[in-house]
Amino acid sequence: MKVLVWNEYRHEQENQVVSDIYPEGIHGAIAGFLKEEGHDVKTAILDEEEHGLTDEVLAETDVLVWWGHKAHDEVKDEIAEKVKQRVLEGMGLVVLHSAHFSKVFKKLMGTTCDLKWREADEKERLWVVEPSHPITEGLGEYIELEKEEMYGEHFDIPAPDELLFVSWFEGGEVFRSGATFRRGRGKIFYFRPGHETYPTYHNQEIQKVIQNGVKWVKNEGTPKHVYGNAKPLETISEK
Amino acid sequence: MKVLVWNEYRHEQENQVVSDIYPEGIHGAIAGFLKEEGHDVKTAILDEEEHGLTDEVLAETDVLVWWGHKAHDEVKDEIAEKVKQRVLEGMGLVVLHSAHFSKVFKKLMGTTCDLKWREADEKERLWVVEPSHPITEGLGEYIELEKEEMYGEHFDIPAPDELLFVSWFEGGEVFRSGATFRRGRGKIFYFRPGHETYPTYHNQEIQKVIQNGVKWVKNEGTPKHVYGNAKPLETISEK
Amino acid sequence: MKVLVWNEYRHEQENQVVSDIYPEGIHGAIAGFLKEEGHDVKTAILDEEEHGLTDEVLAETDVLVWWGHKAHDEVKDEIAEKVKQRVLEGMGLVVLHSAHFSKVFKKLMGTTCDLKWREADEKERLWVVEPSHPITEGLGEYIELEKEEMYGEHFDIPAPDELLFVSWFEGGEVFRSGATFRRGRGKIFYFRPGHETYPTYHNQEIQKVIQNGVKWVKNEGTPKHVYGNAKPLETISEK
Amino acid sequence: MKVLVWNEYRHEQENQVVSDIYPEGIHGAIAGFLKEEGHDVKTAILDEEEHGLTDEVLAETDVLVWWGHKAHDEVKDEIAEKVKQRVLEGMGLVVLHSAHFSKVFKKLMGTTCDLKWREADEKERLWVVEPSHPITEGLGEYIELEKEEMYGEHFDIPAPDELLFVSWFEGGEVFRSGATFRRGRGKIFYFRPGHETYPTYHNQEIQKVIQNGVKWVKNEGTPKHVYGNAKPLETISEK
Repeated sequence: MKVLVWNEYRHEQENQVVSDIYPEGIHGAIAGFLKEEGHDVKTAILDEEEHGLTDEVLAETDVLVWWGHKAHDEVKDEIAEKVKQRVLEGMGLVVLHSAHFSKVFKKLMGTTCDLKWREADEKERLWVVEPSHPITEGLGEYIELEKEEMYGEHFDIPAPDELLFVSWFEGGEVFRSGATFRRGRGKIFYFRPGHETYPTYHNQEIQKVIQNGVKWVKNEGTPKHVYGNAKPLETISEK
Repeated sequence: MKVLVWNEYRHEQENQVVSDIYPEGIHGAIAGFLKEEGHDVKTAILDEEEHGLTDEVLAETDVLVWWGHKAHDEVKDEIAEKVKQRVLEGMGLVVLHSAHFSKVFKKLMGTTCDLKWREADEKERLWVVEPSHPITEGLGEYIELEKEEMYGEHFDIPAPDELLFVSWFEGGEVFRSGATFRRGRGKIFYFRPGHETYPTYHNQEIQKVIQNGVKWVKNEGTPKHVYGNAKPLETISEK
Repeated sequence: MKVLVWNEYRHEQENQVVSDIYPEGIHGAIAGFLKEEGHDVKTAILDEEEHGLTDEVLAETDVLVWWGHKAHDEVKDEIAEKVKQRVLEGMGLVVLHSAHFSKVFKKLMGTTCDLKWREADEKERLWVVEPSHPITEGLGEYIELEKEEMYGEHFDIPAPDELLFVSWFEGGEVFRSGATFRRGRGKIFYFRPGHETYPTYHNQEIQKVIQNGVKWVKNEGTPKHVYGNAKPLETISEK
Repeated sequence: MKVLVWNEYRHEQENQVVSDIYPEGIHGAIAGFLKEEGHDVKTAILDEEEHGLTDEVLAETDVLVWWGHKAHDEVKDEIAEKVKQRVLEGMGLVVLHSAHFSKVFKKLMGTTCDLKWREADEKERLWVVEPSHPITEGLGEYIELEKEEMYGEHFDIPAPDELLFVSWFEGGEVFRSGATFRRGRGKIFYFRPGHETYPTYHNQEIQKVIQNGVKWVKNEGTPKHVYGNAKPLETISEK
């Protein structure tokens, strides 16, 4: 499976705290534990030409993992649109943390994707609410993160096709923190954790969820649809 | 309830067959049977200034009914975006027939909204598959239309929140022809029938469904959401 | 609308704490604030003949509200089955708190309906996650209850048709605390709060949700379905 | 993967037409093409002791495939209940054709599972409506069956978690003919075709769907849930 990990890669270059946690970038950390699964993993970042998302790259990508935060606006509209179209054609998409506000995710959802947030070093506990789903494989009843950014409801997304995790936050909020969406021939998994100032992507349970998610969003459906003007399959009576 | 019926209003001006069926336009016909319900009903058309969809008009509209077909591209992007935002803020939306391809609906769905189609004077039978839903109130088991345009699967929409009708077509196809979607604070009802060359909107059962749909999409939820940076509701421990 | 409030009515007779909070029983308290809505409200309890759920009573009930806890097993199987059938035929059902374990709810869900629980005088905060739904009408972003019993995930129910509330608990758990389900022609609303030793049903926001829920579960769909052997509607070719 | 194919096995013994089509029984035919997938496949029939569904057999079954029709009532209640419990614990279940009326499926759904039907040698065309789903892998846009029994809406099931196929019938009806349901830790796939007097299970596309379905319902979720009285994970304040 060909996986592309896309990262904005700005915090790591501007903030020592972040680069200490992720010396090879958030994309490097994620690519690392995805390679362990035997996938063919590449990375791309915002500041590459065409953000590293050329037609050739997208055409050969089975699953795209997306992390972005402070520079969503710098992603060119035509490239966001191209990525969206590839998802509709069947490329899997894993959307992480603050990528809830990426152009690609907002275009696919059709809603504002807004939420409450707070940076206060608070505890998050992600409860599994759908224990029969492959994305939850290998987990216990919940994942506990000592310190994370808070995201709180209302999370302005369409009702997910499948709700997998609900988070509890120390400060009093809850959040639908793991959810799947089918759009066109593409499958999408949104997973909340991963604020840049915490070592969340070094947590083995978080890694397991993302590994599972990458496998799950890989397209395995029907090879093609036909749209447009269609000849009748049965005789239509004269009226 | 304040209802606005929006129509492209081109076929009626260019095709005698259509204007004979709908002498006051498709919008006039729909407005007529919605007024019978006691609503405050207005109409707007594409060729009005700002397509008749000024901020003032949208602000005071509870439910918008949309019919469009051949001139989707002429709807200005900024107006389509404005209408979408009003839906997310709570304005109800009833999307009729070929408006599956309207900019507003495609933006809200995030998919291509593509489908198969055929104009062949063929029979359609809309089966009720969710008999507990208010939009089906007053109907029998199905609605039969002697002649309609065919729309066939695959219909490239997100899985509906509620699937209400499935159509059978004489030529051998099926279609998810009545479906609801919640987006933001807005409720959306897509209803398939209504090709301009057939008297579909004069059919009393079709009128009943649209009347029910207009009532159902009217917002009755919570008055507001708060997004953005949030103070903790509970004490967060030092770590 | 004819509403029947059914209560086990045992805690109130055995525990002074409970009878001090609900001197007319939990059913009396609930019936009280439902009457304010103008409904025709009756009550029934476990120890009545046939638990007060005769064929005549059920036949004329539009919406049944159910509270039970310690005596689920004393509800006769044939009566639980009869109530379930009436729901499938179109009677609305509001299932409160520990009635998650009632025979009627378990039969309708098909799952164990099991959960985590704890009595520890802890705070519950019910967050609205579906702000466009009529059951949330009149609320703010959340309801806060100073002391309640905890119910925690995993809650073993089918994925709800609509998820309306998610609860945060002081002790670290979350719970899908408001959810709707359509079964047959019947609509069902499960709402979590209401432990007998707390004055939860005197809380005006909780009352508002139950009032809204009773209105929402009232059947307004199609009048009948036909099942069984069916004549063809179209000519079937010889093969 | 350990698969058990269960069959009523009555039609084959009583009707020459059926035994000519399925000389090794419907279970034999299904087991045959499942073995090609490399699974460890066993069969069981109604007339075996405990219907071949002992605790030992169920405990070691990953996926159960069920075909039944005229003798649903002869399946003992306690065994149907036991099978249901195993599904809730994680055993996958593929429910074929007239098994919509099996005790196991009805218990899991909570509804009547009733439908319209007709035996008239009519054409069925199963349209794929969810092209991103693994169960549709390897198919084209639809499967055509020259002769099948008709099943028509309303099909009295809960709204499926995922709707995969919708059938068109020559006589004018439609049917939700492929659908998934999650219950407890178990996954369920209902697939409509397979009337005993037609060679449907010899059709390669039908075989492909059942092969895909067996793989999909195999449990891969979290290993366990804990229910009941739970200690707090956080300190609860005195009030």
